Amino acid sequence: ITISDMVKAQRILFDRIGIHHAHAVIGGSMGGMQALCFAIEHPNFAKKHIILASTYATQPWAIAFNKVAREAVIKDPAFGGGYYDPQVIRENGFPGFATGRMCGHISYLSPWSMQEKFGREYVETDGLYELFGKFQVERYLDYNGMNFVQWFDPLSFLYITKAINIFDATRNYDSLEDSLGRINSQIYLLAFKSDLLFLPEEMKCIEERLHNIGKKDLVTYHAIDSTYGHDAFLVELDKFSHHIAQALEE
Amino acid sequence: ITISDMVKAQRILFDRIGIHHAHAVIGGSMGGMQALCFAIEHPNFAKKHIILASTYATQPWAIAFNKVAREAVIKDPAFGGGYYDPQVIRENGFPGFATGRMCGHISYLSPWSMQEKFGREYVETDGLYELFGKFQVERYLDYNGMNFVQWFDPLSFLYITKAINIFDATRNYDSLEDSLGRINSQIYLLAFKSDLLFLPEEMKCIEERLHNIGKKDLVTYHAIDSTYGHDAFLVELDKFSHHIAQALEE
Repeated sequence: ITISDMVKAQRILFDRIGIHHAHAVIGGSMGGMQALCFAIEHPNFAKKHIILASTYATQPWAIAFNKVAREAVIKDPAFGGGYYDPQVIRENGFPGFATGRMCGHISYLSPWSMQEKFGREYVETDGLYELFGKFQVERYLDYNGMNFVQWFDPLSFLYITKAINIFDATRNYDSLEDSLGRINSQIYLLAFKSDLLFLPEEMKCIEERLHNIGKKDLVTYHAIDSTYGHDAFLVELDKFSHHIAQALEE
Repeated sequence: ITISDMVKAQRILFDRIGIHHAHAVIGGSMGGMQALCFAIEHPNFAKKHIILASTYATQPWAIAFNKVAREAVIKDPAFGGGYYDPQVIRENGFPGFATGRMCGHISYLSPWSMQEKFGREYVETDGLYELFGKFQVERYLDYNGMNFVQWFDPLSFLYITKAINIFDATRNYDSLEDSLGRINSQIYLLAFKSDLLFLPEEMKCIEERLHNIGKKDLVTYHAIDSTYGHDAFLVELDKFSHHIAQALEE
């Protein structure tokens, strides 16, 4: 499964329910990859594409985070080579999947947002010198890891992270310029300065390449001031919602 | 076990072998914590302390990386609650420990060094669309993870990461200023601009606090230009060895 496949499936669904054109396609992170894919591979579907905290091709740093998460899932006996019973997982947990999710959470935040959220605060009931005593940041990761396992399917997780890893908007084209050359809609790029999963420079690259091929009029790029990390696109709406409102109204 | 304990053990050893003073103590990462600890808690032992890629207190971002690694170890059945046989691990591996080590490797590098080392290169013999096909960065992580398990002891790993997590140079003092006030030797701080494990601003903070308490003459701070990440202090010697030579000769 690729990002292109996901977009194709959406187009088929839209066609079935009578939607043949859209005013805008908007997405963040993997959703931003889909929005970019819409713009390149279905250039006449939407008039505007708004891409947040994403990239034109997943870089090795992001692949490495996914790698840790994927390994943690695959190597846990609870995975059973993919032949697991979801009900059993909900009852007994899936420690490797929880650990993998924790690794994702690191990449969604930043040193600064973690500092602000947790500092060096320690769980009150734990001894500082106890080998398994916890900092608050550890409790947060534990909670989010365990919780995720309750509702997310491990194989879906593997297929989705694989699709993210192999996303490359230049596929089937000679170059990124060649690929972006297919675009004939407005592209709005919103990057976040402390995003350590998909760096602002990756988004900036899309803008630059569009400039290079004479499509300057089609692209707007903003790097939003933020120390939150990747998840800023889900959390700090007040910092960028006016850009989206403007993009939709223009 | 704390960083202070490690330093105390070293002092006891040094005393036994007749070393009561040193010209310099130098260390990077956890070694830098030890060097700082020497400067604060054993202020008359060495004349110079050279601290690379380290911090005055481990921040939640670094604790989070350790958390993933520690969970991956603890939750693997191979850990057996600590009652493992090292020989069995060497023969059968310890997947969780390997995965944990991979997470460490992310924190030792940077998006830019990974980009330069691996880009989006794929293992030639693997299919791009295969669920378990690998990017070169994944093969690198696999190799380093597996390798680490062959020679590093899991419980040692847990105790060392715990010591790193709870390292805080302000312990037993009212504040960082109070703690740094004990220092009466030369402090040389070498930070690396792309270090995402121990940020340059954490090192800079030590310099600033020493300035605040009138010890400006004792401290030198350099932020080395580097995109390598934390491991720059082990790899890019040509970028900073002259600072160390100068510090030793001054």
